Amino acid sequence: MAQPLPVTLLGYGAATLTTLSFFPQAIKTVRSGDASAISLPMYVLFTLGITLWGIYGLITHDGPLIAANIITLVPAIIVLERKIRSLRASEGVKLWRGF
Amino acid sequence: MAQPLPVTLLGYGAATLTTLSFFPQAIKTVRSGDASAISLPMYVLFTLGITLWGIYGLITHDGPLIAANIITLVPAIIVLERKIRSLRASEGVKLWRGF
Repeated sequence: MAQPLPVTLLGYGAATLTTLSFFPQAIKTVRSGDASAISLPMYVLFTLGITLWGIYGLITHDGPLIAANIITLVPAIIVLERKIRSLRASEGVKLWRGF
Repeated sequence: MAQPLPVTLLGYGAATLTTLSFFPQAIKTVRSGDASAISLPMYVLFTLGITLWGIYGLITHDGPLIAANIITLVPAIIVLERKIRSLRASEGVKLWRGF
């Protein structure tokens, strides 16, 4: 860490914002029960991506990288699970309409 | 970069997945015109966060960090713009109903 403190703080500020940003989405999705406008491929790729980031952090012994990605994994998995659940529910509706 | 090639590739793989993940969401939101289930605070915090990440990359001369965040900024701003637009539209509906 041979960089000035304001630069380090800028990095932590950026990490905090991008990490926290997924929580309002998870809260909104759980409360409303509406995941229709949520993209399934986004949350599949994103969840996979932050899992790889976490593993990368573990291998390179990068504490902040591990922490940020483990924290972000929580809301990401919640949104992904709700999206899959809503797709299954609408599949059920389609089957029901088929009969 | 004193780390083995597979570790570097893991990092690039992670960066590619999290960067690309926002594109399916932007495409879905633009195509469907439906941003109702999208969280406004998420995209405000996230867009701000990746802007700070990009500035941090510029200051620390980190090429991949700059590239990844500039690329992610594109779909993030698109989704944010559509969300704000849909909120304004529903405000309009509310005003209309008020009369």
